[in-house]
Amino acid sequence: MTEIRTDPVTGNQVIIATERGKRPTDLKSVLPEKKVKKIEDSCPFCPGNEEKTPPEISRINRRDKWTVRVVPNKYPAVSMESSCNINDSILFKKEKGKGKHEVIIESREHNKSFFYMDIKEFEYMLKMYKKRYKDLINLEGIKYVSIFKNYKKEAGASLEHPHSQAIALPLVPKLIKEELHGSKNYFEKEGNCIYCDIIKEELNNNERIITETKNFLVLAPYASIYSYHTQIIPKEHKSNFETINNKLIEELAILLFDIFNRMGRLLGDFPFNMYLHTLPKDEENHNKTYHWHMEIAPRLSNQAGFELGSGMYINTVAPEQAAKVLRSVPTNCCNKKAYIV
Amino acid sequence: MTEIRTDPVTGNQVIIATERGKRPTDLKSVLPEKKVKKIEDSCPFCPGNEEKTPPEISRINRRDKWTVRVVPNKYPAVSMESSCNINDSILFKKEKGKGKHEVIIESREHNKSFFYMDIKEFEYMLKMYKKRYKDLINLEGIKYVSIFKNYKKEAGASLEHPHSQAIALPLVPKLIKEELHGSKNYFEKEGNCIYCDIIKEELNNNERIITETKNFLVLAPYASIYSYHTQIIPKEHKSNFETINNKLIEELAILLFDIFNRMGRLLGDFPFNMYLHTLPKDEENHNKTYHWHMEIAPRLSNQAGFELGSGMYINTVAPEQAAKVLRSVPTNCCNKKAYIV
Repeated sequence: MTEIRTDPVTGNQVIIATERGKRPTDLKSVLPEKKVKKIEDSCPFCPGNEEKTPPEISRINRRDKWTVRVVPNKYPAVSMESSCNINDSILFKKEKGKGKHEVIIESREHNKSFFYMDIKEFEYMLKMYKKRYKDLINLEGIKYVSIFKNYKKEAGASLEHPHSQAIALPLVPKLIKEELHGSKNYFEKEGNCIYCDIIKEELNNNERIITETKNFLVLAPYASIYSYHTQIIPKEHKSNFETINNKLIEELAILLFDIFNRMGRLLGDFPFNMYLHTLPKDEENHNKTYHWHMEIAPRLSNQAGFELGSGMYINTVAPEQAAKVLRSVPTNCCNKKAYIV
Repeated sequence: MTEIRTDPVTGNQVIIATERGKRPTDLKSVLPEKKVKKIEDSCPFCPGNEEKTPPEISRINRRDKWTVRVVPNKYPAVSMESSCNINDSILFKKEKGKGKHEVIIESREHNKSFFYMDIKEFEYMLKMYKKRYKDLINLEGIKYVSIFKNYKKEAGASLEHPHSQAIALPLVPKLIKEELHGSKNYFEKEGNCIYCDIIKEELNNNERIITETKNFLVLAPYASIYSYHTQIIPKEHKSNFETINNKLIEELAILLFDIFNRMGRLLGDFPFNMYLHTLPKDEENHNKTYHWHMEIAPRLSNQAGFELGSGMYINTVAPEQAAKVLRSVPTNCCNKKAYIV
């Protein structure tokens, strides 16, 4: 099968080419086996090395010890003190890289695999996501807070110790602009939130649903740009992640546990990115049209010259197939209360 | 320095964060040393294995033996025989993945480094780019031909033997659409081709020029999204690569030799992508506004969750700095006729 799908929101184009997944390779990237300790003396994120990070911003304790800890990124992409000259020239436009860049340390254990996190750990992580989001979005001059995770070097991680990152930005990033624009366009034509309509259709045809709880759906998106690309979306219309309450955080934690459990059993300890998309500040006119969600992007292959040069994608696993196999992986979550749909 | 630059054509946003280049990492990706032979028995692109590829499409001989050879990709992303059902639904739009996918084998030598290609080899490669472009763009139903190269596994290559690829597509890819749109907008406001105006400005301020010949300029683009990102652009306004004549191909070959020589001396045998951007078929109304160019995208770091989740980029080497060091690398090209600017 080879077909070209267009993402209904962003207009992203993806070639679904399932035969291409079978091609051979003589270029291996087998990394030398590494023995990783539970505590690594040289790691700035390990317990005992707290003084190696810049001063702590926030923490959550569990049995009197921190279990999630937030510190400034020592090598920030943006900074509130950015002193660059702005330039509004039509060809060479630039603005201050004003913002904050934080690290959310998710575990005390250096070698903790995200595929073996427990439900409580996911819950604390999500609570900290919310807390950091609320604090950062309210800073003066900040328009958007990007929260994301890089797991393994192939996914852009530079330190092994489990962590997510938050970057507060003075502007709305391009991909979020595209989502705002696409969903607003749809609303103007159809009178509905496009994400709500997608949820309805997906529940109807049941081809791309991986799992669901009472309040969340986990989908293989129709125009999945990565193999096993996954979207987690609240069933009820909500534009902003910030509004999530503790009960829903607990449910979402169970769902993350479930989905990473399924993915890990199917694909092993693989590199991935996870990120949150939510309504930017001062965009209330998109309240009815935008719908927050999270995505997991497995990094099972490298983007190549075709992707970089065209802005298109090639995906060798059809999302219907990805959903089918992920759905069939047994997990031990089904007896959880959240699962009574 | 941390600043956010916007690409004048595509609107791409890049954070230039030079301090971030200094961050430490405990995740190495040191591949085991591999001894690669000049001819590899199992490689379908090596001389002697010609029957292992699908039937040859085209070749250029040098001393009675092929030196460039084009074959169909055995695992094509698109195919003229695509039989998928099209769907014009507003949410789940798809079309046939109709097209052709070819491999351009650039050398007889399995272990030939692109950094050690000679000028003649670049010339043959470019001549074949033009030939394949002309044949493919004229196929019925084809709108765009993407020509690109993946060098090393980190840049998406699956086979080591030096090769480029051409994918003929039934649509205009997203990134090309953005370039067409951005350059047309500028033309409507300013009355000039935006690329021509950029060339003029860059020649004026001379901060981001890496090297130049009589007819081509090599730039570190103002909003470079990769470290050492490089653009090669004809000085005279031309919308379409297809119009390049043999004299200009010879000049461009010298320039590729020069720029890869400089980059290799500075950065070693590093992974990169190279791609060609040219006017799509049936877009004559963009003839005055679009300007063909080639880009080299070094893959010195992996895109991470921030990039995937935001559509923005972080670049830790300012293009002014990249241009400065690449300019200062000594090469043995300066006595070539093409260099008499």
